[in-house]
Amino acid sequence: MIVMSAKATPAEVRAVVAKVRLLGCTPHVSHGRERTIVGVVGHERDSDLDAVAALDGVERVVRVLNDYPLASRDFHPADRVITLGNGAILGGQGVLMMAGPCAVEGRQQLTESAEAVAARGVKVLRGGAFKPRTSPYSFQGLGEEGLKMLREVADDLGLAVVTEVLSSEDVELVASYADLLQVGARNMQNYRLLQACGAVDRPVLLKRGLAATLDEWMQAAEYILAGGNQQVALCERGIRAFEPSVRFTLDITAIPVLKQLTSLPIVVDPSHAAGRAEYVGAIARAAVAAGADGLLVEVHPRPSEALSDGAQSLDPASFDRLYQQAGRVAEAVDRCLV
Amino acid sequence: MIVMSAKATPAEVRAVVAKVRLLGCTPHVSHGRERTIVGVVGHERDSDLDAVAALDGVERVVRVLNDYPLASRDFHPADRVITLGNGAILGGQGVLMMAGPCAVEGRQQLTESAEAVAARGVKVLRGGAFKPRTSPYSFQGLGEEGLKMLREVADDLGLAVVTEVLSSEDVELVASYADLLQVGARNMQNYRLLQACGAVDRPVLLKRGLAATLDEWMQAAEYILAGGNQQVALCERGIRAFEPSVRFTLDITAIPVLKQLTSLPIVVDPSHAAGRAEYVGAIARAAVAAGADGLLVEVHPRPSEALSDGAQSLDPASFDRLYQQAGRVAEAVDRCLV
Amino acid sequence: MIVMSAKATPAEVRAVVAKVRLLGCTPHVSHGRERTIVGVVGHERDSDLDAVAALDGVERVVRVLNDYPLASRDFHPADRVITLGNGAILGGQGVLMMAGPCAVEGRQQLTESAEAVAARGVKVLRGGAFKPRTSPYSFQGLGEEGLKMLREVADDLGLAVVTEVLSSEDVELVASYADLLQVGARNMQNYRLLQACGAVDRPVLLKRGLAATLDEWMQAAEYILAGGNQQVALCERGIRAFEPSVRFTLDITAIPVLKQLTSLPIVVDPSHAAGRAEYVGAIARAAVAAGADGLLVEVHPRPSEALSDGAQSLDPASFDRLYQQAGRVAEAVDRCLV
Amino acid sequence: MIVMSAKATPAEVRAVVAKVRLLGCTPHVSHGRERTIVGVVGHERDSDLDAVAALDGVERVVRVLNDYPLASRDFHPADRVITLGNGAILGGQGVLMMAGPCAVEGRQQLTESAEAVAARGVKVLRGGAFKPRTSPYSFQGLGEEGLKMLREVADDLGLAVVTEVLSSEDVELVASYADLLQVGARNMQNYRLLQACGAVDRPVLLKRGLAATLDEWMQAAEYILAGGNQQVALCERGIRAFEPSVRFTLDITAIPVLKQLTSLPIVVDPSHAAGRAEYVGAIARAAVAAGADGLLVEVHPRPSEALSDGAQSLDPASFDRLYQQAGRVAEAVDRCLV
Repeated sequence: MIVMSAKATPAEVRAVVAKVRLLGCTPHVSHGRERTIVGVVGHERDSDLDAVAALDGVERVVRVLNDYPLASRDFHPADRVITLGNGAILGGQGVLMMAGPCAVEGRQQLTESAEAVAARGVKVLRGGAFKPRTSPYSFQGLGEEGLKMLREVADDLGLAVVTEVLSSEDVELVASYADLLQVGARNMQNYRLLQACGAVDRPVLLKRGLAATLDEWMQAAEYILAGGNQQVALCERGIRAFEPSVRFTLDITAIPVLKQLTSLPIVVDPSHAAGRAEYVGAIARAAVAAGADGLLVEVHPRPSEALSDGAQSLDPASFDRLYQQAGRVAEAVDRCLV
Repeated sequence: MIVMSAKATPAEVRAVVAKVRLLGCTPHVSHGRERTIVGVVGHERDSDLDAVAALDGVERVVRVLNDYPLASRDFHPADRVITLGNGAILGGQGVLMMAGPCAVEGRQQLTESAEAVAARGVKVLRGGAFKPRTSPYSFQGLGEEGLKMLREVADDLGLAVVTEVLSSEDVELVASYADLLQVGARNMQNYRLLQACGAVDRPVLLKRGLAATLDEWMQAAEYILAGGNQQVALCERGIRAFEPSVRFTLDITAIPVLKQLTSLPIVVDPSHAAGRAEYVGAIARAAVAAGADGLLVEVHPRPSEALSDGAQSLDPASFDRLYQQAGRVAEAVDRCLV
Repeated sequence: MIVMSAKATPAEVRAVVAKVRLLGCTPHVSHGRERTIVGVVGHERDSDLDAVAALDGVERVVRVLNDYPLASRDFHPADRVITLGNGAILGGQGVLMMAGPCAVEGRQQLTESAEAVAARGVKVLRGGAFKPRTSPYSFQGLGEEGLKMLREVADDLGLAVVTEVLSSEDVELVASYADLLQVGARNMQNYRLLQACGAVDRPVLLKRGLAATLDEWMQAAEYILAGGNQQVALCERGIRAFEPSVRFTLDITAIPVLKQLTSLPIVVDPSHAAGRAEYVGAIARAAVAAGADGLLVEVHPRPSEALSDGAQSLDPASFDRLYQQAGRVAEAVDRCLV
Repeated sequence: MIVMSAKATPAEVRAVVAKVRLLGCTPHVSHGRERTIVGVVGHERDSDLDAVAALDGVERVVRVLNDYPLASRDFHPADRVITLGNGAILGGQGVLMMAGPCAVEGRQQLTESAEAVAARGVKVLRGGAFKPRTSPYSFQGLGEEGLKMLREVADDLGLAVVTEVLSSEDVELVASYADLLQVGARNMQNYRLLQACGAVDRPVLLKRGLAATLDEWMQAAEYILAGGNQQVALCERGIRAFEPSVRFTLDITAIPVLKQLTSLPIVVDPSHAAGRAEYVGAIARAAVAAGADGLLVEVHPRPSEALSDGAQSLDPASFDRLYQQAGRVAEAVDRCLV
């Protein structure tokens, strides 16, 4: 919908109408008391509308429909379901718990973490082999060696693996070890990486960028879907807001809003949102109550020795409590933690 | 703690030390490899530290302790409890449901709303007689006439009343009708109003400002407490963030953080946060799961005829569902909806 | 403009059309490929549209026109000009410098500050007698005694006075001493105060709320204008964003945007935005370059002894530099500092 | 600096002290009235402090020093200067104008744009061959063909070329055509790309992420510097805030703050900040007044035909005005536009 300025001349309105027709769309002109508005119906794209916005006499262009046809619920009304290698299911009736250490630091730490979460009933192991770190001087992960450890430890316990892929060049490599490829918040608009994820035959967990609107997030998912990979899940992990006492602000409202916009499964990462272990349980319970389809939780056998994110990692006893509490909340909303 | 710049001279450090002593505090100087840091112990105030920050050679002043002694949990470790006129209790084991229309529009609308929520078991009626409206041309509320209706309708049904007070001049008037005085988000730093609320013998529900940090919110509560009124509860109602599809972004993480900082009861208003009725249920359930002590929900007999906030008001049937679901979540976290 | 959901039935569309007519507006229905859209022409208000948004089948309501007819440039195309008591002019060709201490602390401090800025050529003295402070334990200002000092010191030097009014009860009092009433950021949506400012015969400087959109700010100005007071100026003083190294983030882009939306004069307060004296000069120059009509700068004879905001106050020598630099930038954009 | 909780036991304090020593740092314990604080001096890293934060009894860890030694002004006090292939200089006394179309669309459009800006005196041509687009359905750029055109058109006119590189795989390719490699806002924390930029012998222009703090931005620059490439410049292009009438909010205050933190040159992109051509001039003038070392401006021969960003592109006549005005402001701050 194109809002003309109050001073737009009839010639300017005619130019806008002509441009809209040139773009293959149908213009609908309505003359209000103060302004003229040109409605546009058709398969226009952002770039086209940008061009219209630059015409003389145009005050504003307001988009009415979304720009992510494949990701939208209109296109795929039923909730989508992703089945991982070990049969674990993301989406649908269950709420899938994924847990493990922030980073793979070594075999012992990984084995201890994996055994702790598997003992609790968890079926998906998380752990980072390639770590995106704010500082170049922080621990950057074990790379392929870490991927191998993840796969071996997970196979021993019958777990699936979710781990981050940082770059388009690594997609094939990570996909050869992992059941679920995680795209991190800082890469949500790394379009090369999204395209590479669209071309691989592995489910993808797309985290929300720190300042991404829901619309931008859906369009990032659309990159993967448009590439041919229909197995995409979303992960809310906190947005950047102004409160200094937490690392990020979890956008709980995003869950019901996304449930309307899309049928892709929605995961919540309560660990990164607050950045401190003592808040993780409350956020995890809230996420399940609001309708999340999965949780991604950091667990470390000894958080005070962790090489990254120690402050927000749960020890096994705290994770036990979280698991039990989140399970009870899941039942209260007629679901169950799996 | 005062961080000196890398180039600070010994004379500049001495001047800072002298100033700190003048303020009646004790300085602790420690010389690091790159910088000198002056720790300050004592009852300094913000204004004092501002003065220090202006001295030559000072790079930064970092505050370590909070500035709200009365509101802090350190001061009052046990959870505080507020008992309203009809015996309804805010804080403690129960989760208190407060519900009713956004604005009092007339006796019939109010009576229908109140009967609908009372039938469900609700003990506290919400409703606005003085309305803060963004536009001067919007409905501004019925004023004292609305307060009278609220009181009469509530008394008929055995309900307590929570309603907003907009101005220090009105505090006495509103307190003569209401059980719980609501201070709105836009007035969170209206210090005259806070002072007047500190001087009255009525509990106060202090909503968080749209862009208030938790620290600023606690200091606003401190105004009321310092005035002598110890009956203060807090209400999270969404902060201003960048997402355009919702009116505000509910800060769910604030609940566990506040539970550490303070023992004041914490209420959540799910209706204002998202601004659309279909999101209210999910947010309400999340709030209870995260530990909220109360909910404040907008209910209208016919939302499409509401004079304000129709889009976010629940009709009685939707409220019934919310009440039942929130009740089940409350039980899942070992509490009960009252 | 009302966007119907993809699944809206013809009956739902008819109900929306009927509601729009009931509100006294004219509906324009257009059926797109995916959705039906109902355009609304007329003098509808926010509250009306809220009601429509609650109807079944409505997905979204998009506002096209602004809700501040009196404040808009459409209503008053020519730049508005405010003349203060001593003949100083805000708006138009000049850029008006207003300077002085954050708070009036005593006669000597005020006199020294006023003489310093008057010596530089400044015609408007700023200074706070009623101080809004985050903490109840901070210095709260001298009250009416401070107002008297401001008036006397200003009169001795031929200066006009701008000072803050905190509460509707004080508007008459402050107006009896001041030439320009400042409404602070934390009171931008204190509607009682705005209404009282609308009823007084004194120019008002309305600061932007910390998280106010331009639209909300314009509607706050509309409260004053609708009350009958046409002498309103706006003051940008930084918004709340996520950057921790500054107190606020000055929204420089707001200046050209506001210049399109409204003809009210626009002032910038560079002192509060950054919160540190060393950034004030750069922000002041930027504001003038972007088109600001005035500056509001904190100057203190000895910032390290200030009772409030010492870190962001300029000493007289620094103010001299700022004045000279801002004056040169003003000339570069064909204006002059007055 | 480690702040212990009010209830920390002596044993917990001893454990923190021991951990700090284990990390190779020196602890300084000071016992305040309410809390004990442990200062840490040494070359600790974030990951280490995370581990400390997870110890019992620790309330908070406050960082005092920055984590970007190479990027900091402490390390390199003098303003850094980057000389491009054609002798154009970024940093130092001049303010470097870089201009051209958002995207290279074809030879004619590029040639017209380049001739228009070269005629004005501009020495650096901007233009995108690899375009990061929010939607997968938008124009994605001409790729290497676009790079070749850029180089040829620039060489004909004696211009240097600045263009975006999207992926680590493309760094060598883009560096073989461009004088200055641009890393876009959405890639600011694409660490693989930063590492690849650190290994190449070409200057890099690092744009600020939409929600990046200055500290995170400096650490991103540190990735490139730590890789061995000392030719890094920064580009502020607007942050994500809550105002809906602009695409982004230019953070003008960042300029003086960065000037203190670092000696790297600072560029401002006024075109992306506001997203509309009519605001670009005001923002560009403000940037120069605040101390920017360069401008990056979108110019298109016919904005209404642009394939991307038409709404924010200047036509040649508007660019002429901007160039002249920015030049006058540069002189007002004792610099000159080059």
